[in-house]
Amino acid sequence: MQSDNGLSRREELLAVATKLFATRGYHGTRMDDVADVVGLNKATVYHYYASKSLILFDIYQRAAESTLAAVHVDPSWSAREGLYQYTVRLLTQIAANPEGAAVYFQEQPYIQEWLTPEQVDEVRAKEVQVYEHLHGLIDRGIASGEFFDCDSHVVALGYLGMTMGAYRWLRPSGRRSAVEIAQEFSTAVLRGLIRDESIRTGSPLGDAAGA
Amino acid sequence: MQSDNGLSRREELLAVATKLFATRGYHGTRMDDVADVVGLNKATVYHYYASKSLILFDIYQRAAESTLAAVHVDPSWSAREGLYQYTVRLLTQIAANPEGAAVYFQEQPYIQEWLTPEQVDEVRAKEVQVYEHLHGLIDRGIASGEFFDCDSHVVALGYLGMTMGAYRWLRPSGRRSAVEIAQEFSTAVLRGLIRDESIRTGSPLGDAAGA
Repeated sequence: MQSDNGLSRREELLAVATKLFATRGYHGTRMDDVADVVGLNKATVYHYYASKSLILFDIYQRAAESTLAAVHVDPSWSAREGLYQYTVRLLTQIAANPEGAAVYFQEQPYIQEWLTPEQVDEVRAKEVQVYEHLHGLIDRGIASGEFFDCDSHVVALGYLGMTMGAYRWLRPSGRRSAVEIAQEFSTAVLRGLIRDESIRTGSPLGDAAGA
Repeated sequence: MQSDNGLSRREELLAVATKLFATRGYHGTRMDDVADVVGLNKATVYHYYASKSLILFDIYQRAAESTLAAVHVDPSWSAREGLYQYTVRLLTQIAANPEGAAVYFQEQPYIQEWLTPEQVDEVRAKEVQVYEHLHGLIDRGIASGEFFDCDSHVVALGYLGMTMGAYRWLRPSGRRSAVEIAQEFSTAVLRGLIRDESIRTGSPLGDAAGA
């Protein structure tokens, strides 16, 4: 079933619920509100999503899948290229769906209340995967001599905060594109990690950046 | 009036409410819950705070005051020393009161619902002050030639995310102290900003770090 703008009803429902959850919170949104905005009766809404928490879990699964796409590594990349590619992909996805990212981070402290233990485990496992990706890249850079020695655990957590925290202000129509912001973030942190002075001042983002 | 552990009743109430708001959310905590945990009747709770939203505003004001203490600048500091001192102070305050910081960030998207327009303006004005402090430090470093050129707006927002996002995992009894984490964060980003190779590899945190 297609609505006027070509989204399926289910996708439209999800988009409306995501926007409402992002601004009012999951706790502050009723299925009636979603039905009202999308212009359907509540029974039809329940046909697509049997409960409000299934909408929330759908938002989490989609956000987690796009975040996982950001942790792809090409074996030919240096550690600095891997870090840059993660940043570009993550920020591009946040800019494409800032409301989904907002719901993801804003509801995180409370998901145990709304989701089943299995769903919570699934969300947490994907979060660990992203942290381990960054941690692993930094460790690889240190081991190969590409990076200065540092506490890769702490720097990975800091870089997660820097990149993921962008959901608070990154917008598709902002002054700077997601790729430009990724270049600023990566350059600032990579110049701080890279030992080799000529690489650091020349091509901190690596060849993959095509800079 | 002092309770057994020496906190005033009001402080005790605030501490209990902060813990409940941090774990269940402001929306998910009733004044009855606060009264139950602190062992007072509801009328006594209302004697100290006439409404639940006044507790929330108190949490915001205290968090904002300690954050503002982090933006103090000694005129003798270089830009890199200023950035490091901000980081140490902010992380020390987050580690001292991670639940207050959690409430501050978790409720931020919804404060317009709970606080008066004047209270919201007061909170927002203090947030702008912190951003402008970081932005100004980076601009000063660029202007003096201490730092590489960069988009100081984007880097300031990224550094805010890196440092403030630490409320998610920074704990007073963690493996690394707040000062150690501040040193890791500042070193990673400052080494990326500092032009001078000998300062960068020698004393990126500046003399104020006493390293």
